[in-house]
This record gives sequence, structure tokens and C-alpha cells, in this order.
Amino acid sequence: MGKNKDKGKGNKAGAAGKPSSVRELLRVGPGFNLGEVDPRLIVAGPDDKETARAEALALEAEVTGLQERLFAESKAGGKRRLLVVLQGMDTSGKGGAIKAIDRICEPVGLRMTSFGAPTKEELRHHYLWRIDKALPRAGSIGIFDRSHYEDVLIVRVHNLVPPDVWGARYDEINAWEKKLADGGLVFLKCMLHISREEQQQRLLDRLADPTKHWKYNPGDVDERQLWDQYQEAYQVALTNCSTDYAPWYVIPADRKWHRDWLLSRLVAETLREMDPQYPAMTFDVPTEIARVKAS
Amino acid sequence: MGKNKDKGKGNKAGAAGKPSSVRELLRVGPGFNLGEVDPRLIVAGPDDKETARAEALALEAEVTGLQERLFAESKAGGKRRLLVVLQGMDTSGKGGAIKAIDRICEPVGLRMTSFGAPTKEELRHHYLWRIDKALPRAGSIGIFDRSHYEDVLIVRVHNLVPPDVWGARYDEINAWEKKLADGGLVFLKCMLHISREEQQQRLLDRLADPTKHWKYNPGDVDERQLWDQYQEAYQVALTNCSTDYAPWYVIPADRKWHRDWLLSRLVAETLREMDPQYPAMTFDVPTEIARVKAS
Repeated sequence: MGKNKDKGKGNKAGAAGKPSSVRELLRVGPGFNLGEVDPRLIVAGPDDKETARAEALALEAEVTGLQERLFAESKAGGKRRLLVVLQGMDTSGKGGAIKAIDRICEPVGLRMTSFGAPTKEELRHHYLWRIDKALPRAGSIGIFDRSHYEDVLIVRVHNLVPPDVWGARYDEINAWEKKLADGGLVFLKCMLHISREEQQQRLLDRLADPTKHWKYNPGDVDERQLWDQYQEAYQVALTNCSTDYAPWYVIPADRKWHRDWLLSRLVAETLREMDPQYPAMTFDVPTEIARVKAS
Repeated sequence: MGKNKDKGKGNKAGAAGKPSSVRELLRVGPGFNLGEVDPRLIVAGPDDKETARAEALALEAEVTGLQERLFAESKAGGKRRLLVVLQGMDTSGKGGAIKAIDRICEPVGLRMTSFGAPTKEELRHHYLWRIDKALPRAGSIGIFDRSHYEDVLIVRVHNLVPPDVWGARYDEINAWEKKLADGGLVFLKCMLHISREEQQQRLLDRLADPTKHWKYNPGDVDERQLWDQYQEAYQVALTNCSTDYAPWYVIPADRKWHRDWLLSRLVAETLREMDPQYPAMTFDVPTEIARVKAS
């Protein structure tokens, strides 16, 4: 739990130093154990806040360029789009994470959706109904602040539906994600992993600041009592639903600047791999220049 | 059309210098004539790009603070929300304007919606159906890139529906906006006003840059031929639908940095006037601190 960079247990970085890919480093694979991931660990990149912030921001030009290509591609019929799914315990920093992504992206073509407790209308539908409605359009990037995974997290911990019902959802989610992935949706599913101690401190910070009181809910402490059950529910969701077509990444999130650095890298690496392309022209440039000049 | 700051015709700034309110300055009121608004004019604020950019950015802390209060207010049942409507001719800079707003806002609680040609499903519904679905939730800020005003702009210019149908829409839009305003939605309707010469230059710039070719459509020139009809349609929409509860603002937009400065000020002034408030606490702070510490 020290401040030093320490390649500890649960960390897939080679002994030789920085991994070439943060995705590779954070990806949930065979044998993954959430309990072995230290939320305070600096797993790659700068050890200090200022350098980490600067490095993350420096990705903006590349990321907005890739984002423009993705959008351009869709104008010619391309179906690809990116969905960043953010999950984590209360106070894990989903809002801050969204801000980090927003900093390096163009706002046009970026769409955030927050999923709270389902409304009455949503409860009348299948749990994936409201998720389907919020999926990003071709060419754009969506960010989900919580998601369909709540239907195997809070729902499981509180048995809001019977165990056989939530138990069937892992396969159902995998099948649904597979269909979307086949249709051009690229998933970047991220769990922001904080420690129990860090959550306590963040709740106390909220209570110490009157302008943050609105973020505090006495029910947060009740949920906090169920910490271990939530960690178990995450472990099962992460391992059951980390697939080739929609892998999970676990981001050590006790240090906000490190969380943001990792997330920015994950977004950049994913868009780089998508490698979107400008569509071929469908008009003759000299002809069009003449038309514009004459108009 | 010179580069100097020039308080010309159609500009409501007093001779004494800067107006106290950009909203007052740009608001469409009685006797408004779009043809008299010079799109190159610097109507208020800095005359140079660097200062204007810095001043706009400096609004971020205040705007995000107000935005947080607005969101907090909604957590306690408040219904207020802000909708920025952006309209303008092709190349008028709606994307850039969205970026300017995004720069001074928190991405959480900010939602952009672009309205293109209606889909088949949308055409089966009333023209306000897709708009209703995209309205911002209580506590948040929505930005519309085009809007229901297309139903009295492109629809009018091309007579996509008979004149008596589009002719009835001005009153209908006013009644619909009134109902929403009564329900807590604050409108900030902005027309980005560019000159015909500036549009020509921007289209030529797109054609000169292969990475911008995807933004170009030969149909843009056909629409450009209808410039005067569009200006007339804007004049009618602006004057018919600039009301006390949902006024229109016309932003001279030939200079991008001036457009962004004006828009940033409009957003800040509107949120300031809304003056959102943190809700009263519903819990006892010392009790909750003790609960968190014990958990």
C-alpha cells in the first residue's frame, strides 16, 4: 500500500518494466482474482500526478483525430462505435473518469448515459431494454455510468430477483454483447477498483464539505456494510463476462490521477486498434471547387 | 466588415461601451432584422483571439459550480434544466460551438443530440416526437445540434409539407416551449450567424483538405443557392418564436473565437440567472460521520 511504484501480485507487467499495452496489463483473464489487485498500486506510467495528468492530456490530438475518422467512416455506412462501460463501488470516481475521457475527446459524437435505479417504466421491460436504447450510434462513442452489470451486482447482492433469474444473466449478457460486437460495437468495460479504506475517506470528505452533502446518502453506509458481498459479485461478473469480444479491465482507482492516466490510455489504445478510416471520396474535387466558387 | 470593433447597426450596445449582459445584447426583440446583423462584427468583449479564448475558458470554474448546484437541486426534486438550441447554416460552426460549451462544463450532466434528416420511424410521428425524447433530464444541460426549428427552416424552404402545415408550426412551437418552460426547462436558443462569403470560404477550406472531404457534400452547394430563402425562413422563425419564456439570440459567427466567447457568456449568464441552490440536508452530519467511521 506504499506510495512507491511496485509491481505486485495480480499485476501482469513483465519484470522488464512498462508493458507495451495497458489493455494487456489490466485485462481480466484466466485465474483473475479481484482480491489480489491492489487499488493503490501504480501499475504503469508516471508515479507522479503532474506528469500523469500531462501525459493523459497529451493524448487529446491523437484521440480526437481517431474519433473524427470513426465518425467519418460511419458517414459512408461504417457501423463501428465504441462503448465505454464504467462500473465501481460508490465514490469510485465514475464522474471523474468521465471527465478524463471527455478531456481527450471531441464532445460531438460523445454521449454519456447514467443508469440509476430503474424507473417504473423500465421495470416493466427486460433489464436490457433501457441499455439497448442508450447504445451509441455508428461512428460515435458512448460512456455508461453504471450499466446492465448492475443487474448482476446490486440485484445479486440484494436478491432483487430470485437467484436463478440473476444467475441466468451472465450467459444472457455475454450473448447480447456478442451480437453487438458482431454488429460493430467495440466494448471497453472498466471497473474502477477502490479500497474499502479509500471509500471511507471519500465519504468522510463529502461529509466535511457542505457543498458535497448532496452527494451523500445515509444509505451509502448500508451498502458499504455489504462490501464483501459486492466484491464477490464483481469477481463473478468480471470473470464470467470477460470475453474475447467484450473483455473487462480492472483499473486501480485509489489514486485519481493514475486512474485517469490508465483510462486515457485504454481509450487511446482501443481507438488505435480500431484504426478507423476516412471514406473514399464520392465527388470530383476540382468540379466541386468550381461549383463553390461560382455559388 | 472591418476588423475593428465597431458598434454598428443592429447592435444594441450602448455608446458607453460594454453591455452588462450579452443576453440583452444578442436577444431577438421587436423590430429585429437579421439582414442588419453583421456576422463579422465584434459586438462585445475582447477584439483578439487569445484574450477571448482565455476569458471564455476562465468561466469554467463558475459554470461547473453552477452546473453542480443545478444537478444537486434536482436530487431534491428540482425540475429545472437548461437546453441550448444551436441553429445555423451549413458550416456555421455548430460543432465548434458545442466544443466551446463543453470546455466550460462538466461532461456528466451534459448531453448533446444531433438532429439530422428524420428517420423513417421519426417521420411516422409528429415532428416534436423525436425532440421530446431528447430533452435534458431535470438538473442537466442539453445541447441540440439543429432542432425542431428545422421543421420551419429546411421544411419551409423546400416545402416538404404544404405551407399551411409549416405555417401552423410557429404557434405550435411557442405553445410547446411555453409548456416546457412552465415545467422548469430554461431555453437558450442560439442562431450562429455567418455571412455568405464566410460559408464559401469554409466550403473551399474543406475541399482543400483531404481529411475534411468527408464533411463535404455536393448537396451543400445546392442548399447554398437557396441562401436568401433560408435567411428569410430564419428571419420569420426568429421573430415569431423569440418569446419571453424562450428567447432567440443571434450570434455573429464569422469569427470562431468571438462566437465562442459570446456563447460561453450566454451560458454563464443564463446559469447565473437560474441561480440553482444546494438542497437542504436531510441527515445529521455528526451522526453520519460516526456511522462512516464505524463502518
